[in-house]
Amino acid sequence: MAKPVSIEVWNPNGKYRVVSTKPMPGTRWINLLTQQDCRVEICTLKKTILSVEDIIALIGDKCDGVIGQLTEDWGETLFSALSKAGGTAFSNMAVGYNNVDVNAANKYGVAVGNTPGVLTETTAELAASLSVSAARRIVEADEFMRAGLYDGWLPHLFVGNLLKGQTVGVIGAGRIGSAYARMMIEGFKMNLIYYDLYQATRLEKFVTAYGQFLKANGEQSVTWKRASSMDEVLQEADVISLHPILDKTTYHLINKERLSKMKKEAILVNCSRGPVVDEAALVEHLKENPMFRVGLDVFEEEPYMKPGLADMKNAIVVPHIASASKWTREGMATLAALNVLGKIKGYPVWSDPNRVDLFLNENSPPPAASPSIVNAKTLSLPVSKL
Amino acid sequence: MAKPVSIEVWNPNGKYRVVSTKPMPGTRWINLLTQQDCRVEICTLKKTILSVEDIIALIGDKCDGVIGQLTEDWGETLFSALSKAGGTAFSNMAVGYNNVDVNAANKYGVAVGNTPGVLTETTAELAASLSVSAARRIVEADEFMRAGLYDGWLPHLFVGNLLKGQTVGVIGAGRIGSAYARMMIEGFKMNLIYYDLYQATRLEKFVTAYGQFLKANGEQSVTWKRASSMDEVLQEADVISLHPILDKTTYHLINKERLSKMKKEAILVNCSRGPVVDEAALVEHLKENPMFRVGLDVFEEEPYMKPGLADMKNAIVVPHIASASKWTREGMATLAALNVLGKIKGYPVWSDPNRVDLFLNENSPPPAASPSIVNAKTLSLPVSKL
Repeated sequence: MAKPVSIEVWNPNGKYRVVSTKPMPGTRWINLLTQQDCRVEICTLKKTILSVEDIIALIGDKCDGVIGQLTEDWGETLFSALSKAGGTAFSNMAVGYNNVDVNAANKYGVAVGNTPGVLTETTAELAASLSVSAARRIVEADEFMRAGLYDGWLPHLFVGNLLKGQTVGVIGAGRIGSAYARMMIEGFKMNLIYYDLYQATRLEKFVTAYGQFLKANGEQSVTWKRASSMDEVLQEADVISLHPILDKTTYHLINKERLSKMKKEAILVNCSRGPVVDEAALVEHLKENPMFRVGLDVFEEEPYMKPGLADMKNAIVVPHIASASKWTREGMATLAALNVLGKIKGYPVWSDPNRVDLFLNENSPPPAASPSIVNAKTLSLPVSKL
Repeated sequence: MAKPVSIEVWNPNGKYRVVSTKPMPGTRWINLLTQQDCRVEICTLKKTILSVEDIIALIGDKCDGVIGQLTEDWGETLFSALSKAGGTAFSNMAVGYNNVDVNAANKYGVAVGNTPGVLTETTAELAASLSVSAARRIVEADEFMRAGLYDGWLPHLFVGNLLKGQTVGVIGAGRIGSAYARMMIEGFKMNLIYYDLYQATRLEKFVTAYGQFLKANGEQSVTWKRASSMDEVLQEADVISLHPILDKTTYHLINKERLSKMKKEAILVNCSRGPVVDEAALVEHLKENPMFRVGLDVFEEEPYMKPGLADMKNAIVVPHIASASKWTREGMATLAALNVLGKIKGYPVWSDPNRVDLFLNENSPPPAASPSIVNAKTLSLPVSKL
């Protein structure tokens, strides 16, 4: 017998049983499921990460689909259990799915959904937020003020950077890197230097057009440059944001040697993946360079930080909240629910998982489709037209 | 006999004795003075605010000019002492000069300088920085992470606002308010609503042109609206930044009643003057509305905060650092030094104190003029042409 777990049940008489391993933001996702004859069960256990055993207990004997989290281990055991309970659908509430053994899901014919298309702007805004907070030393200044240490205005107190006219460096100018670059260029009139294996043609064209627009308005233009090496970015930029994917080539991309190439007063931001930065080397660099500042959303051994990092006044550290806006998180919940619902109802898979506006419009019913199923091809699921 | 004070002396054989009551950022201001035959004495006393007695001791028997700070009480006593020591020039290292009794300075024929023209962008960038930090709850998220409370990703952890498409409200759309508005509009594609006694024609025209530029690039436009009342801004905006001047009409402009008109999840930023906000009412409002957030650079009874404010997780509090960028603070030091130097050398007064680029160019000598003397007219000082 499965051990007891705390759940919240919506629409108890629904035909299809859908389980969410966590409470998710908003209520639209629940309504969309219950309106289409689902019984929704939400695990309310006060435990950050559910174990495989916890989830087996949640799946129980009869379960059509599960919405899970990237902190959970979705492998052979869980897909086998889900399949045995009659389930055919799983969706991560996340873009990434390195917690999912897609081969195991394929073996049991379970569709695996994810939620791209709603994270770009929110993630880029976090990188911008960390950049400008670091530029003005907001966290250490707040700590000083709150501790009652402020006893009057001083010419040298928490002097930071004026971003206007400085250079923003972007490493990895894909969707998020480009959105971030634009925030810093347009918002703060920074000049751009970027490094990417591919030419960010659209970004370059935009910056050129924007520079001309500024000039036409009698203002100083902004410039862009594609660096021929990453070191060029490290040497020239005042604020550097990392947006590469994580693979063997980007593991410890920022190490001791590369840190030493950056300006002594530079700002480094990482909202990509923790292992892109050698965190121990970073701690040393922060100690030796008090005016070097860093904004980190991700860590090498999450949820932990390397020794010393938590003591550094020139670091801002936040707990993996890049996608944490109401709009994005509710959107992710909606997309994950619709991935599961679509498979249960036999709907086709949406053709472009990055163009999901129609699913997110609260004033109209979503298309009859699963927004994003990563193993649709393997499972030979039908594809919807845009 | 004057009591002893700690000082640092530059160019001891200089003909004119200029005293700075504080170490100021950068070295250009020192070089400019010593190159023109000044002996520069900098007070290095470890005391945040110098008393009138301290400054009398610094002035001594012979002093041509003093650079002071807005925390000091420059009235009858000090101007009399300065005049007796042969001094004719004083400059605040600040734009404001409510610490200065200009009538007393007039009485003794002492020129009073200030340093406008270098604060706009730096102050607007701090307001933007507080806005985006509050939007993403950076300070409380950092505190949580640093305290070791993060034990894994959760759908509800520190969910904040996506700024894109939200509305920014600006109260007081002068120089700084307009610069801030542009950062939020261009950087984050926010729509603008503003309230001001005067129409911000230039800002309106810019936003219209920028909206057309976005459209021409196949993107969603941005909008602007001049509110007919302040309440309209309070009700409609998601992020509100205060940029009024402080006078009788703006004292406690934001009070309990006005706070209650704002959205429950709104963000309020104040980089203007403390008494514009009823701080005690604000603390109550923060307690009752946990998702209402505030970013404050100024306080009603600086350097103190009203009881309870330091405990609020939904507040970001920084110690009056709006002008704290290297560029601005070094610029302020340069302008203050040149104000004093200009009077000593008998140079004319610059005609537009807001256009001071020529004084700040490190690669060429500054114009032979005082950049900004507030009582130039009363003292009948000659005016330079641009």
